[in-house]
This record gives sequence, structure tokens and C-alpha cells, in this order.
Amino acid sequence: MSQEEIYMAAGFGAPVPRGSKPALIVIDFSYGFTDTTYPTASEAGDQIAATNRLITLARVKHVPVIFTVIAFNKAEQDALPWLKKATGLKALEEGSRLVEVDGRLDRAPGDAVVVKKGASAFFGTNLSAHLTGAGVDTVIMTGATTSGCVRASAVDAVQSGFNVLVVGDACADRAQPPHDAALYDIGQKYGDVIDAVEGSSYLKSI
Amino acid sequence: MSQEEIYMAAGFGAPVPRGSKPALIVIDFSYGFTDTTYPTASEAGDQIAATNRLITLARVKHVPVIFTVIAFNKAEQDALPWLKKATGLKALEEGSRLVEVDGRLDRAPGDAVVVKKGASAFFGTNLSAHLTGAGVDTVIMTGATTSGCVRASAVDAVQSGFNVLVVGDACADRAQPPHDAALYDIGQKYGDVIDAVEGSSYLKSI
Amino acid sequence: MSQEEIYMAAGFGAPVPRGSKPALIVIDFSYGFTDTTYPTASEAGDQIAATNRLITLARVKHVPVIFTVIAFNKAEQDALPWLKKATGLKALEEGSRLVEVDGRLDRAPGDAVVVKKGASAFFGTNLSAHLTGAGVDTVIMTGATTSGCVRASAVDAVQSGFNVLVVGDACADRAQPPHDAALYDIGQKYGDVIDAVEGSSYLKSI
Amino acid sequence: MSQEEIYMAAGFGAPVPRGSKPALIVIDFSYGFTDTTYPTASEAGDQIAATNRLITLARVKHVPVIFTVIAFNKAEQDALPWLKKATGLKALEEGSRLVEVDGRLDRAPGDAVVVKKGASAFFGTNLSAHLTGAGVDTVIMTGATTSGCVRASAVDAVQSGFNVLVVGDACADRAQPPHDAALYDIGQKYGDVIDAVEGSSYLKSI
Repeated sequence: MSQEEIYMAAGFGAPVPRGSKPALIVIDFSYGFTDTTYPTASEAGDQIAATNRLITLARVKHVPVIFTVIAFNKAEQDALPWLKKATGLKALEEGSRLVEVDGRLDRAPGDAVVVKKGASAFFGTNLSAHLTGAGVDTVIMTGATTSGCVRASAVDAVQSGFNVLVVGDACADRAQPPHDAALYDIGQKYGDVIDAVEGSSYLKSI
Repeated sequence: MSQEEIYMAAGFGAPVPRGSKPALIVIDFSYGFTDTTYPTASEAGDQIAATNRLITLARVKHVPVIFTVIAFNKAEQDALPWLKKATGLKALEEGSRLVEVDGRLDRAPGDAVVVKKGASAFFGTNLSAHLTGAGVDTVIMTGATTSGCVRASAVDAVQSGFNVLVVGDACADRAQPPHDAALYDIGQKYGDVIDAVEGSSYLKSI
Repeated sequence: MSQEEIYMAAGFGAPVPRGSKPALIVIDFSYGFTDTTYPTASEAGDQIAATNRLITLARVKHVPVIFTVIAFNKAEQDALPWLKKATGLKALEEGSRLVEVDGRLDRAPGDAVVVKKGASAFFGTNLSAHLTGAGVDTVIMTGATTSGCVRASAVDAVQSGFNVLVVGDACADRAQPPHDAALYDIGQKYGDVIDAVEGSSYLKSI
Repeated sequence: MSQEEIYMAAGFGAPVPRGSKPALIVIDFSYGFTDTTYPTASEAGDQIAATNRLITLARVKHVPVIFTVIAFNKAEQDALPWLKKATGLKALEEGSRLVEVDGRLDRAPGDAVVVKKGASAFFGTNLSAHLTGAGVDTVIMTGATTSGCVRASAVDAVQSGFNVLVVGDACADRAQPPHDAALYDIGQKYGDVIDAVEGSSYLKSI
């Protein structure tokens, strides 16, 4: 059997329900990941523009918009095994410019900014409880990087009980093959991979 | 820059410390993933044999061996969003043969079997607390599938504070490209990808 | 100021919203906690009867009923620090009668039984994700013991994003003062302490 | 049987192991809980002084000192069910003086400050992963309030795999009965309740 046939036989890739209470989660569009003067960043201008189009629609429909950033204190920089493997991320220091949400994003004062310490927006954060408390049933995700923090967050979102939509053309990565492989796995196993046009239609339909 | 150069500049791919207190975690080698009469399974004979070689050495060194299986009750089959996307996994019913650890594995009566409800062996389970309580500092992982549960577990293991070693030739998947892409991402960002020979050397060195 | 005045000034004790999608969670009414031939148990006959009245109403309204039990495997018995403090709980072995849900409860085949490894029904389990996936917004709790697992579960339930109602006369404990102190703290800080009559009215109103 | 006999028969109250790698965790000694001009605070001068004596010894032995504070953003103030029950805690706004660590504490620039959103220092935070990554096996706890955040953190610490020591005379609360009831429950079920003298001896012995 081809890979496609194997995955279809295994029952993967079904479309997920679109709930009536979505939230838009913008993963790690902080300067450390969007300003290419930093070695950990990738080009994300188009993806930020696409995210802003979704944010505009989210405002109209009172859909929560939540941003995440990675930021470490000195004790964590020494202790966390992740930073022994992905050593470049040590640069994401609390209080530094690298951990600020990119100013190109249409952030509003009431938007939550979740500070995370790992790849997943849900691991070691209050995000799942926040979404549950807000009655959210579906998460729409954009951000960086596709194969890293977006993917890990998509896996945790569906594990946490939410339907997952990942907006492929609003996700940035350092290289194309990991971006593509991540979207493939997400689309088969964790959530629907949509584009910003479909994301907009869904938000308008709320 | 090439992808390799970009990743090196970003500080990825450093070798992780090998601690003095490892545990061997065998992910989802239950019949639902190893007996190819089930559509969710993949061929895993060689990977089970490699895992058994590591188990034998783990016994000598009193290294904990922990197995995981996925198993759902009826309420979860209805409620969990994951099963709306990965519909074939609904077949993993509590009490069914699909959720039993494959009998080819050298399981001992004292080994823990962690029942999980998602891709990650850590999500919604007591595994991190168990390992912490046992003083474990490093996890060695084998199992299935590489791009699904092994990868999600590797991400959560490092996020949980453990050094991660994934034994590539002891991990099975349904198709080669997702297997390769997962090992690539793991090796760059989450843990060292080793082979069973290196895993054996490490266990002997304890 | 009196304690009452201090707590009122601090803004505690407000009534919590009753949502439209409750779940009934029955904590640790397994023989190890309900059959007084075991030293870890307490008398729970009236509380089980009160729980059954709530279960009957829950069935009518298709409200999920979820049971929890504590059960340890041998590896956990050695590794978990909790069992070094609360040594008597080591007796709660996987597969033993102590970890079975008490047969006096009106359990249905489709009810989930969550196996937990700590005091809280949410810690190291999939319960929060299950409830979120089911769209639950409010949890009604009964069980044993009030000052131990019920209280810990109530704290985690509200932290996880759910409104909490604890049915005081359906919660059993080994002694009155800890039972009373736990209900006091819960009522001030974590959830409403109601009785089975009020719990029944709420379920009828769904 | 008396309560004491019942608890002894149930196997509670055993002394916990003192490990070789402790951390000192100072719970919520922020102005919102220590400056009695705020209605959520209690008098904590003696307890802060006792904590400082432990901090001094911790520095000598390179024992990590970690502070926690509660702080909410506006989205959380609206969404979290906890703040519907404990309404006074809404005042703990991000960026306000109430969420700053009390200046009387001997905080060093390298100490981690964990921002939490619930009663437990572990819930929705990276604390367990941080401690595991640092190789910590035992937590020493001080802070406020005994019956609220200290107790919830002690329960989660032992559930997370750590031995727990709570320094009773370094824990502050709004009223004596809940303080006493919390220390009783902790001492029976979750960790040893010690005083600052014993805490000092332990730290000196490292």
C-alpha cells in the first residue's frame, strides 16, 4: 500500500468539528523568532500579515486572541534540559527584546500573553485552564515555528480537549521540508490544516 | 544559507548529557500498533527485537523499564477530539487485545504499564511524577510510531526536565518519510537520536 | 476583625455559576476507602446512598458520571514519595479488591473510571481533557475522603477551569474535624458546598 | 478509635526522606498577601524573617531559591472560574504592586520568580519541570497562605514526585484555625511539618 492508503486505512485525516467558541492562538511571534537579525528567527512577514487579517475578524466576533512567547529566567537557563539540546534558545531571556511580541501584530491591551518555557503553548502554562474557563471548544493556530512550537502546541491542544485548526500560510519556519512534514503530520493526526481564507470564513460564520 | 547552516546558527542539535539514572520507556508496542492485521499497526519485529536487547541490559543495571499503551473507555471514545481526527484509534478499547503489550517484549511483572489517552506518554499520565520520584534524569525511548507517539513523548520528556535519547532503529512507523522527518526534528531540537548499539553502550556504562 | 469578617473583606465565598453542562465526579468510593475492614476506609453508606440519588438524576439528563479510583503498580509503590508519607495507601494495588468501585454504587457500563495516582482526580490523569472535550463547564463532586482526595480534586477542578460544587453530605471522611475544615476552605475559596437536595435540584434544572 | 488512632492505623504521618538536593520554595510572599493595607493580605513579618534565615543558609549551600507570585491578565480575570469564587484575588493584576515579591525578602537576581494563576505553585506552571531538570529531590516550603496556596502547593509537590517539608512557623495565614487544620492535614498526608530551626539544620547538613 502507498503511504496515503496506509494512512486512510488507519483512519487518519478526518475533518475536525468547527465549534461555536473558537480562540485564536498566535504562537511565538516574538522578535526572537521573527526578526532575522537573530539566528533563531525566520522570515515571517507574510505570516504576520495573514495573522493580522484573522485578528481583525476575531475582534468583530469577540473571539479571544492569545499570544505566546518563550522567555527564560537565569535559573531556568541553567536547569532546563531543553536548553542543553536547543542551545540557541537560551538567548530568549526574560526582559529582552527577543521575547517581546512583534510590534507588527495587531495586539490589543486586553489580549493575554502566555509565557511558556517549552515548545508547547500548553506545557507548563495555564492555557488549557484559561481556554476551558472561557468555554472555548476550538483553537485556531498561527505562529512560528511550524515544525517546533506550532506543532507541539497543536498536539497538546487536541490532547487537552480542543478541536484544532492550524493556518498553514500563517505559520513560519526556518526551512521548507520541516514545515511541510509538520503540516502533513498535523493534518493527518491532530487538526485540520487550513489557509487564512478558510480561517476567515470560519471566523465570519461565528 | 542551507538548512543545515540555518539550524547550526540557531544553536540546535547539541548532544545531550547522559545522566547516571536512566529509565527505558517503551512507547505503545501494543498489538494495535504492532500486529499488522490491525489497520493502525505497522511492522515492528526488528524494533521489538532491538528493544528487547536494551531491556536485557536494563535488567542487569536495575534501570526501570516502563511500557505505555493507549486505551480508551466508551466515554472517552465519544468525548475526545483526538478521536474525531484520528478516527481509527477509537478501536483501542480498554480490555481489547489491541491495547495489550505485545507478548514478544520481555516484560517483567514489576514493570509499570502506563495507560495513556493521547499521543504523548506524559500527557494526562503520572509518568513525569513517577520518573521524578524514582530520581530518573535521562529517558531512553523506543516504540511506535516514530512520528506520532514517540515524537510527542520525546518533546514532553525534555519539557518535563529529562534528557532524551531516542533509539532510531528501535522505533517503528507506518511509512519512511514521517519516520525520517520525526527523527530529524528530534535530533535537532529535543533529544539525541542514537541506535541500539549506542543505547546498549550507555546502559552498560551505568 | 473576626475570621468571618477577614474572609468577607478578602472577597471569598462568592457563589459560583451553575453551568448548563455539568458532570458528576465520584471520587474514590472504592472498597479501600468504603469497606471499614480496611484501615484506610471510613464509613460511607449514607454518602454512597446520596451519591446514588444524584446518579439517578444524572442519567435522566445525560449528565456524564465519572468514577475515580487510586491504584498503584509495583514500580509506583517503590517510587512515589506520597507513599513514603501516607504509607497505608501502598495497599491500593492494581487488581486488588481495594481499588474496585464499591458495588453499592449505581455504576453503568459506559461510565468512565479514572485511575489516579495521587490525591487529586486531575493530577496525572486525563480528566480535565476529557471534561473539556465533552464540553463540561461545571463539576459536581462526591466521594472520599473530604479532606484528602475530594478537597485536592476540588482545588484542581477550579484551577482547571470548571465551576465546582461539592456535595457535603455525599462526602465521607475518617474524622469530623478534617471533614469540616475541608468543607470550610472549599466553600470559601474553591467551590460551593451544597447538599444532595440542592444537587438534585440543579440536576433537575438542566 | 480516636482520630489519632484512626490515622495511625491508616498508615499516615510517616516521616519523609530528606534528600540530598533540596530547593527552597517561597510561596506568594508578594505584597497582595503580606501588606495588610490590602484586604487579601495577612500579617507575615515573622514568617518572612524566618524565611530569610533559611534563604541565607540556602545561599551557602547553593540550594535553589524559587519565589512564586499570583498575577492575572485581563483575559484571565474574566475567564478563570477561581476568580468567580475568590473574587478578591482579581486585584492581583499583572504589573501591580500586589504581585511584586515583598522587598523584605532576601531575593537575589538569579532567583526564579514563578508566576502562577491558581492556588498551587505547580498548577499551570513549569515548576515541576524546572525542579526535575535541576535534579531536585526535596522541597522546603514557606509562604502564604498556609491553608490556601502553601497547602495546595504541598499536595502538588508530593504528587509531582518530591519529598515535602513545610516550615510551619514560616507560613502565614489570615486566621489560626485554617492554618492549624492545613498543617495537620499536610503533616498526616503530604509532607513533614517542621519549624525553621529544623529547616536550618537540614540545610546545614547538605
